[in-house]
Amino acid sequence: MAVLDLSVSSIDLTRQLCDIASVSGDEKAVADQIEAVLAASPHLEVVRDGDAIVGRTNLGRSKRVVIAGHIDTVPINGNVPTRFETIDGVDFLWGRGTVDMKAGCAVALTLAVELAEPTVDITWVWYDHEEVSDALNGLGRLARMHPDLLAADFAILMEPSNSSVEGGCNGNLRAEIRTRGLRSHSARSWIGDNAIHRAAPILDRLAAYEAREVEVEGLVYREGLNAVGITGGVAGNVIPDECMVHINYRFAPSRSTYEAVAHIHELFGDFEVEIVDLAQGARPGLDAPLAQEFLAAVGGEAKPKYGWTDVARFAGLGIPAVNYGPGDPLKAHADDERVAVDQITECERGLRAWLTA
Amino acid sequence: MAVLDLSVSSIDLTRQLCDIASVSGDEKAVADQIEAVLAASPHLEVVRDGDAIVGRTNLGRSKRVVIAGHIDTVPINGNVPTRFETIDGVDFLWGRGTVDMKAGCAVALTLAVELAEPTVDITWVWYDHEEVSDALNGLGRLARMHPDLLAADFAILMEPSNSSVEGGCNGNLRAEIRTRGLRSHSARSWIGDNAIHRAAPILDRLAAYEAREVEVEGLVYREGLNAVGITGGVAGNVIPDECMVHINYRFAPSRSTYEAVAHIHELFGDFEVEIVDLAQGARPGLDAPLAQEFLAAVGGEAKPKYGWTDVARFAGLGIPAVNYGPGDPLKAHADDERVAVDQITECERGLRAWLTA
Repeated sequence: MAVLDLSVSSIDLTRQLCDIASVSGDEKAVADQIEAVLAASPHLEVVRDGDAIVGRTNLGRSKRVVIAGHIDTVPINGNVPTRFETIDGVDFLWGRGTVDMKAGCAVALTLAVELAEPTVDITWVWYDHEEVSDALNGLGRLARMHPDLLAADFAILMEPSNSSVEGGCNGNLRAEIRTRGLRSHSARSWIGDNAIHRAAPILDRLAAYEAREVEVEGLVYREGLNAVGITGGVAGNVIPDECMVHINYRFAPSRSTYEAVAHIHELFGDFEVEIVDLAQGARPGLDAPLAQEFLAAVGGEAKPKYGWTDVARFAGLGIPAVNYGPGDPLKAHADDERVAVDQITECERGLRAWLTA
Repeated sequence: MAVLDLSVSSIDLTRQLCDIASVSGDEKAVADQIEAVLAASPHLEVVRDGDAIVGRTNLGRSKRVVIAGHIDTVPINGNVPTRFETIDGVDFLWGRGTVDMKAGCAVALTLAVELAEPTVDITWVWYDHEEVSDALNGLGRLARMHPDLLAADFAILMEPSNSSVEGGCNGNLRAEIRTRGLRSHSARSWIGDNAIHRAAPILDRLAAYEAREVEVEGLVYREGLNAVGITGGVAGNVIPDECMVHINYRFAPSRSTYEAVAHIHELFGDFEVEIVDLAQGARPGLDAPLAQEFLAAVGGEAKPKYGWTDVARFAGLGIPAVNYGPGDPLKAHADDERVAVDQITECERGLRAWLTA
């Protein structure tokens, strides 16, 4: 087993972390490595829970910040080990995990070891099982089992955001909208009642839907309502008795889950509606004083985060939180996942500037 | 292996035939039994091709009639062996194959052995693989390999028709209608193009479609155009880039396959259309003199057959053909498949009356 070499740049450390494969459920090897590195840093108190590793400074600072990233990746698809690539003059590190989100993990690990006396106390978190079901999520487990470990005034989640600050996230709802009919042989279709034909108004409403743009604390969140799946049919000679349209509603963080559910019932109340997934969004949290200081140190303008991320877990704990990490989120999970190496350096610079100011 | 006992009624013979399971592809045992019975009948010339058995009289009559039935069934679902049941005073033989179509096969076998000197020459056919793909159909194989064996002036197919004469059949077309879009993460749906939303007009047109009723040679055929399946979707967080609506068009026998395809293109020409199944219907053929004599002997009024049956193969060979067999077609393939035993007796009476008149 190779041992992580912390003497290199965070770019090269990203590569080391990616080349220890850690698809969700298989994070132990990389977690062991991170734990060993932290244990050798006398300024950190290290706690491990499963494959989540927490490293805390205890300097008695007036403020505490959580800086967290997940160490698992989606399945590898011929894209490990990593390699360096230059495309149109831009240098990339290519491979699974480079964007989502081992570059962020590497920046955090570099700074965790380096910064023995940051201006705020820091709780560094590397956690498991982010890419799979909510019930397995390592950050959720820490919040349930060791809420004291996550107590903080502000949190930074190192989700890919092109090394700029992205505040909050939209909420997320999925529902199954069903129509029912009556089976018959399709040679005598008038005896049956076609459930797929009955689904026509569902698609009409989705196609005609005009999604809102909602300003929340100065950031504009764009919503979306979409069919993400449709199924129906028994056989080529049978009138179908059921059709299901699977919809996904992304809603601004100013809308509660209750309001989101009510909106779906308002739109599709004349059909069977079953909510199958529901997560509150997170307000951007940029009005928190620490957030303002952070934003000033990092530079640039904050943007809204559209996708749901674990910042919503911090919001749920009452901790303002933002996304800030290297990598283009559009390349997360892609087979050609790759991070511009300059973004790794830029993210490291921004965080260091703030934590040492 | 039990040997068929021909000394009993065609009701009891139906039961014997059903209790020799013969799901498509597994017809050998029942074919062996039928072949043995025919071989013991000196007035019949017997030819076997695979599991299709042909028995012919060669009396030098001026007319020849084919009387055919298939010996395979759809899969058994706990409904063999058969049993007798009385429901609301009606006596039924219950079980797989009783309707579709061993009752018809039993009537034919009873008469084939009994009628040494019918008024027309008869080509009796029991064939395999009707319930599966067109390429395997035993009647189709005979038509390709031994067209001389099927030469005739008229044909009767013993498909269940409540022991009344059902003329011709509707044509059958299946097509896949596709929409295309562009994938994106559903958190940024405006980057993508939702193929399921694009399918809304397809369902609208199907739901609004008014099917024709078309008179052909005195019988009214009811058409139908239906979605029989719909699929689309990649994952709960992805805007889908493809949606497919599987449609089934049943069209009157006066409409050619060319016209049927043109009609589908006319309706859905602004989408991708792929024809995946296409079969010409069959005109009722009741204007043939033999058909008129048959109808007079059997009694009752002819009706249109809505479902596609192998009468269309005879029509394709230029042989007028009708459906005539015991059993309610709505019970074909049903788990509670059952034939009213009176219909078996009635069908036998009708055929005997004509063949001995």
